[in-house]
Amino acid sequence: MSKIILAHGEGGKLTRELLESKIVPFIDNSVLQTLTDSANLGEVPEGEIALTTDAYIVSPIFFPGGDIGSLSISGTVNDLTMVGAKPLAISSALIIEEGFKTSDLEKIMTSASSAAKEVGVRIVAGDTKVLPKGKGDQIFIVTSGVGVIEKNRKLDDRFIEEGDAIVVSGPIAMHGATIAAIRHNLKGKKLSSDCAPLWGLVNHLVESGIKPRSMHDPTRGGVATLLNEVAKRTKMAVRIEEARIPVSPEVRGVTELLGLDPLYLACEGRFVGFFRKEDAEKAVSVLNAHPRGKDAAIIGEIGKRENGSAPVTLITKFGSDRPIDELSGLQLPRIC
Amino acid sequence: MSKIILAHGEGGKLTRELLESKIVPFIDNSVLQTLTDSANLGEVPEGEIALTTDAYIVSPIFFPGGDIGSLSISGTVNDLTMVGAKPLAISSALIIEEGFKTSDLEKIMTSASSAAKEVGVRIVAGDTKVLPKGKGDQIFIVTSGVGVIEKNRKLDDRFIEEGDAIVVSGPIAMHGATIAAIRHNLKGKKLSSDCAPLWGLVNHLVESGIKPRSMHDPTRGGVATLLNEVAKRTKMAVRIEEARIPVSPEVRGVTELLGLDPLYLACEGRFVGFFRKEDAEKAVSVLNAHPRGKDAAIIGEIGKRENGSAPVTLITKFGSDRPIDELSGLQLPRIC
Repeated sequence: MSKIILAHGEGGKLTRELLESKIVPFIDNSVLQTLTDSANLGEVPEGEIALTTDAYIVSPIFFPGGDIGSLSISGTVNDLTMVGAKPLAISSALIIEEGFKTSDLEKIMTSASSAAKEVGVRIVAGDTKVLPKGKGDQIFIVTSGVGVIEKNRKLDDRFIEEGDAIVVSGPIAMHGATIAAIRHNLKGKKLSSDCAPLWGLVNHLVESGIKPRSMHDPTRGGVATLLNEVAKRTKMAVRIEEARIPVSPEVRGVTELLGLDPLYLACEGRFVGFFRKEDAEKAVSVLNAHPRGKDAAIIGEIGKRENGSAPVTLITKFGSDRPIDELSGLQLPRIC
Repeated sequence: MSKIILAHGEGGKLTRELLESKIVPFIDNSVLQTLTDSANLGEVPEGEIALTTDAYIVSPIFFPGGDIGSLSISGTVNDLTMVGAKPLAISSALIIEEGFKTSDLEKIMTSASSAAKEVGVRIVAGDTKVLPKGKGDQIFIVTSGVGVIEKNRKLDDRFIEEGDAIVVSGPIAMHGATIAAIRHNLKGKKLSSDCAPLWGLVNHLVESGIKPRSMHDPTRGGVATLLNEVAKRTKMAVRIEEARIPVSPEVRGVTELLGLDPLYLACEGRFVGFFRKEDAEKAVSVLNAHPRGKDAAIIGEIGKRENGSAPVTLITKFGSDRPIDELSGLQLPRIC
């Protein structure tokens, strides 16, 4: 079989053969291989249990730096990581359009499996459905993740205090700019998505003795939307400095050409963390020592919200203040 | 807003407004309302943790007896229930086509919420993505569920023994026949999907002192495919009697008209359970006393697999034996 046909989604013999030949081999673990109604994770470490889910409809499905497979695993690992949860297990549901190449499915499963292995999380459950030609668009993936928040590892915006430093773990907007460049046929640019699972980086930080108060990953809506949500939840003022925000020259070039603002473009392998002021310098140097955090930087701080002041303010390179709103319209559909 | 537009999937202000107005109100619980990266389920009861995921692409999305919302919750509750896990929390990811009516989204969320409430499970996490017109088909839903298998509640095919009785919890093929009838414009039939969450029924059974060895829900591929999988896993012989299998007159009528075999059509609110022979009669009477199990019946038994004998055999109404294979081609696409 070189292409997916409708019968691959029927639950019978062909579904089983597809699973056994194209999916299970890429997910080498004993739990999935029982192919039963629910995966049994066994007894889990003591702590609070976290659950997250994300639907991926990115177009194109392959892009420099990743594909819909690695993106789906990274996104789910990151959502768990952001609340302080160690990722334990992931489920992956595939909605495939009839005619999809099984060789592309193999590529996607390989990269998903590789992202999962980087952080030691198991893919334990799956489902495969097939849409008639023209009723879908190649492949959609929905991943869900279960994690455990061990004692003293919880991260929450309620822990954020005035004076806290805001740190970003690397150059922003790389995923969004990469997808935008492809859509506009901008070739020859050295652009690549930042798509990556962050558990390793964050765990490295916490095990080095630096615990953030809270953190989030700036996906859809970018850093600007994330900071607006934090300002809304904490009722504090967020101030960031344009000059300190890491943006690669390639991203700057593409966004200027297309009239896009990097602050609103998605990252898929970065976090924005909130740290005690006195921990911030050390946090950055610990992050810089890890391959996934080498350009981490302090970009701003949390202040008191004065009457009439904007929730989020950018201090521009010219020293002026500019309020940063949340994303209100459409910037880039199907980014993830 | 009466229709979904692309910007509802962008992660910004419109996404937040859609969530706050059309989704969160139907899911009344404190966990979801934090709208953070991952839902925190708190500390869970002692036991093994189960995880399951299912993608729903059913067409049409509304049908007699349910809709894609109640179907998605029922299916996930049932997958947990089938391994002996009490459903704790569900995540629901929506992939919506641009132009979808928000009133239909409300109907779907209402019925999903109602199915969840019936069995006391919380919907705690979600994601909403929007596809451009023509790249999807109204709405797809992917639900994942986390449950806990408390001590002595585990169900597994490995517990099945020769001589065990096979019980079905109600008339089969109702979901599949209902969808098939709609597709073929068969009107005026009193057909309705059996779509329902089964945790209440199974918990009632176990709390009455009857523990099945194993059970499964005959969804895609129907009872025939399920029994073939059990025969394959246990290496035993499954024998069922046609005369004892509950099939409603409406389902019989439609399937005869369309040339479909009820044994291969999906149920979405039934289980096939394997019981110690001496427990089977009592199991059926306990099930019959519950609103979701009033037509439960013993339909066959587990035997020794002889050399050359079929894994699954049907004893027809005429007393002859007929081997029952697993579903090998396409019977009915987009049934769930």
